[in-house]
Amino acid sequence: MSLGRVAIVGAGQIGTAIGMRLRQTAPDGVTEVALFDRDPSVTERSLERDAGSRALSAPGEALEADTIVLALPVTEICAFLSRYGPAMRPSSMVVDTGSAKRAVVDAMAASLPSSVGAVGGHPMVGTERPGPEGAEPDLFPGSTFVLTPVRDDPDALARASDLVRALGARPLVMDAREHDATVAVTSHLPHLMAYGLSSVAAEASARGRPVESLAASGYREATRLAASDPEMVAAFLSANADQVRMALGELGAALEDLGRALHSGPHALARVLAAGRRTQGSAA
Amino acid sequence: MSLGRVAIVGAGQIGTAIGMRLRQTAPDGVTEVALFDRDPSVTERSLERDAGSRALSAPGEALEADTIVLALPVTEICAFLSRYGPAMRPSSMVVDTGSAKRAVVDAMAASLPSSVGAVGGHPMVGTERPGPEGAEPDLFPGSTFVLTPVRDDPDALARASDLVRALGARPLVMDAREHDATVAVTSHLPHLMAYGLSSVAAEASARGRPVESLAASGYREATRLAASDPEMVAAFLSANADQVRMALGELGAALEDLGRALHSGPHALARVLAAGRRTQGSAA
Repeated sequence: MSLGRVAIVGAGQIGTAIGMRLRQTAPDGVTEVALFDRDPSVTERSLERDAGSRALSAPGEALEADTIVLALPVTEICAFLSRYGPAMRPSSMVVDTGSAKRAVVDAMAASLPSSVGAVGGHPMVGTERPGPEGAEPDLFPGSTFVLTPVRDDPDALARASDLVRALGARPLVMDAREHDATVAVTSHLPHLMAYGLSSVAAEASARGRPVESLAASGYREATRLAASDPEMVAAFLSANADQVRMALGELGAALEDLGRALHSGPHALARVLAAGRRTQGSAA
Repeated sequence: MSLGRVAIVGAGQIGTAIGMRLRQTAPDGVTEVALFDRDPSVTERSLERDAGSRALSAPGEALEADTIVLALPVTEICAFLSRYGPAMRPSSMVVDTGSAKRAVVDAMAASLPSSVGAVGGHPMVGTERPGPEGAEPDLFPGSTFVLTPVRDDPDALARASDLVRALGARPLVMDAREHDATVAVTSHLPHLMAYGLSSVAAEASARGRPVESLAASGYREATRLAASDPEMVAAFLSANADQVRMALGELGAALEDLGRALHSGPHALARVLAAGRRTQGSAA
């Protein structure tokens, strides 16, 4: 079974990047890429970047495709599955791109007939710039694209892997809960930290501190994720709230340890930091 | 009074970058750039990058220069001033590059004869890569170089500004305490956050989570500063411990607010995040 007609629902940054990449590489078996976004101006800007050959006029039209890609905030992915899932055609295949996977695979299992292939997906690429203008299809080659199975369906997993490879990415199959617990640390927590630092800086700025003058590359990188679309971020944080809360607690404890070491003198503090540094090397 | 003979004490990343830039642009009035590092291999690698025309064999030889640049960890800057400051020649000028300024200007005021020009300095550039290999002299043009006066000495400030402009950077004169309170938020706190996230990730990795597989650009940026030289970071964090502790407390409160909002649903959470997002835009 080839990917056939592809429908991308959600023509923002990731949906546009996927469409552009499929149009650029024109992999065997992809016969069409069609786009839907509830905001017609987004669809238009995505088409201008050649992320698809045509626009769908209603989300339900995506159900006519062979491969349906849900590139929406997690909350909207679940809402789409609940509304349209039961009507999906047998032998069609649906994959999403949300950053939290347990909620999505649960919604897939609950809403989709077993004749529909379904796999959760999370491309480990992306920028903080929302919308079609933020799409960077060149980030896919060599990147990891997590696939989280919904049920024992090797055919669905094979087709989702075909899509991932068509983008130039590497499929990495993983349990949804395992994924969520890990990205709570590697992605969701860094997002919260960026928002946290931004708000501390805003308060310092409001007190008259020359924050902008003294913000170098380290600050800009540490706050970059806070420029992300708040609706998208809120959707995946909410869908993974328990794991994120746990990671936040662990961060709080780590920062408290560092805070206590601040007054222990430079040599003792350097030893505490060096331990963290080895860690960073191994995880980067 | 021109910059004359320049001696750079500390041939690591910043010392090397300053030397390279002075050698490349050969500004009027700079007659020599000499280097000292207590580690001869560092001096050698710095000379290989052409950060100076010769090596000094002892730190005290820097006192023969007209312009002395202390490019050391903050703790070592203060130790150098305490040991060599009283013997500095009248009409020589000393500036440092440490990331915490109150401790340095206090040490300058305490150790230097009033005939010596002295200004605290902090170039707002740099990478996380320590040593001569991390030097990026091209980062200076257009960047901010903070100057914190030690005493009312317009001549010293003019000469320090000449040095800053010779690098292609913009001098920004500021009170040392004001500087320290601000960089506690824009630089020192982001360093601690990077170490904190690294240690949370290390623990997750030790529990078997596939942290490395799921670490995308956001994670790498959020932990990049934890690759910095621990001795250097520990020195400025210790020298600015009170302000950093305060910033850490504010971050803790901000993260607690975000943590509480995690379970309030995506729409309420998005509003909380959007507030932080506006902040980021204004401070970036």
